[in-house]
Amino acid sequence: MRASENGEPLFDTIAIIGVGLIGGSLGMAAKVRGLARRVLGIGRSEQKLMRAKILAAIDDYTLDVSAGVSEADLVVICTPVRDVISTLEAIAPSLKPGAIVTDVGSTKGEITNDAAVVIPDGVYFVGGHPMAGSEQTGVEAAFPDLFLGATYVVTSAPDTDLDAMGKIVALAEALGARVEIMTPEEHDAAAAIISHLPHVMSAALLAAAEQAQRESGKVFGMAAGSFRDLTRISSSSPGLWRDICVTNRMPLIEAIGEFQGFLADFKLALMTGDEEAVMRFFEQAAKIRETYLRIAK
Amino acid sequence: MRASENGEPLFDTIAIIGVGLIGGSLGMAAKVRGLARRVLGIGRSEQKLMRAKILAAIDDYTLDVSAGVSEADLVVICTPVRDVISTLEAIAPSLKPGAIVTDVGSTKGEITNDAAVVIPDGVYFVGGHPMAGSEQTGVEAAFPDLFLGATYVVTSAPDTDLDAMGKIVALAEALGARVEIMTPEEHDAAAAIISHLPHVMSAALLAAAEQAQRESGKVFGMAAGSFRDLTRISSSSPGLWRDICVTNRMPLIEAIGEFQGFLADFKLALMTGDEEAVMRFFEQAAKIRETYLRIAK
Repeated sequence: MRASENGEPLFDTIAIIGVGLIGGSLGMAAKVRGLARRVLGIGRSEQKLMRAKILAAIDDYTLDVSAGVSEADLVVICTPVRDVISTLEAIAPSLKPGAIVTDVGSTKGEITNDAAVVIPDGVYFVGGHPMAGSEQTGVEAAFPDLFLGATYVVTSAPDTDLDAMGKIVALAEALGARVEIMTPEEHDAAAAIISHLPHVMSAALLAAAEQAQRESGKVFGMAAGSFRDLTRISSSSPGLWRDICVTNRMPLIEAIGEFQGFLADFKLALMTGDEEAVMRFFEQAAKIRETYLRIAK
Repeated sequence: MRASENGEPLFDTIAIIGVGLIGGSLGMAAKVRGLARRVLGIGRSEQKLMRAKILAAIDDYTLDVSAGVSEADLVVICTPVRDVISTLEAIAPSLKPGAIVTDVGSTKGEITNDAAVVIPDGVYFVGGHPMAGSEQTGVEAAFPDLFLGATYVVTSAPDTDLDAMGKIVALAEALGARVEIMTPEEHDAAAAIISHLPHVMSAALLAAAEQAQRESGKVFGMAAGSFRDLTRISSSSPGLWRDICVTNRMPLIEAIGEFQGFLADFKLALMTGDEEAVMRFFEQAAKIRETYLRIAK
């Protein structure tokens, strides 16, 4: 076991609820990097947990959520986004005094609002969103360097305990991620634009392409690189994306609205033959992308 | 010189007007695959043509367009899309009887309509669009396998000479491309959906992201893989995309309209909390993408 900065592991026992791609990678990284004395997997399928243990994602596992979390000073909820709060409710009575609970859900507003209500006194909830993943799922796809260089959002809400937040920041940094601290609202607005809207765009493009394909039969055969790249994200789980969109309803509706505005402006420029506006639209886009690439490093 | 199928090169002299990425790659492939006795480069910059000759994209070159095309039995116009017709007008009087002229422009309706008016009797115009390219430009980026496995659209219009069209199909196949014969209108409708609309979407997404970035300062730093992939195409030349959009105005306006419809449907489902419709939207998209991948092989 490698020690963390001050020579001590950051946590004694980390309990991971849901040992899939994210939970499994987090467990592997925690073990490889010596961030905890012990990593405990919690789930509903003994078979999957055994697999996680064999793959060195966890040291041990239990099917008993209450018993499992009662031993942990850090609980990481890695369930699907819509199960985070019901999981938190279920474990609340069993948490050790001083324990920290965090999650890895893709939306943060609903979760942090509800967590503030559900979390008992003397234990702490800090929202998190490691922006790492792949099209693959399950612990078989997990690897300890999943978080390396990825952005890891840690949320700061009015009731967030600063000491607990500091420990989650330290965890994320120890995983090799680049930490961004923001409010849940800032996170959700940004995620709506840069992640959720692209999924909606990709799905709407596929729907439009299918309609054209049915009319002429000649669309898909012609589709090259840019179409394939742009729609790649639509191969991911529909249920996951329904849940993300539904738990981020208002920010996503707003992001779609902004996007619709720019699209309508462009269409109008094209309809009125305003070539300068068409040119400006593409020039602006190229400039913005340069700026983005500089900022995103 | 390797011979083509019947033991003879397909053409005696191919003249390429505009020896950049596409023209240069076409010249290289024609030389490597023995598709012509001689490949002649035509352009305005002697320096660039010398460079093309050094890179073995052409056997020889001339700055004199009229003299150059007068020697060719195939002329390939590889200028920017909006210069194709003026180039055809300029070379028309000098073309050899029986010569075939083709182009590689990204839109085909305007070009084939205008070409039908401009092309003299006894010479033939066949529209073409090799759907190959990269973000790089210029003969320095050219390579003979650019067309390998790419879709090469050859257009068939009411006045298209079948014999001439057959020769362009043979050329495209000899370049290693997969040929699709379609009408200029079919091409433009399909290209609007699978290529031009994605560029418009990417630019509108960047505009929306920039606005959000200005408001919160936290958007670009969080943008991960899908945003980067989706907006990659916006780094290409704004002038090129203005020209493509403007020469494909009506089909693109229609494609944007279809896309807007699906986007509005999704937004409405989200606003009314219709989770089943949200789910269906993503399920459909995943299914359509599977179908597309099967058809696109």
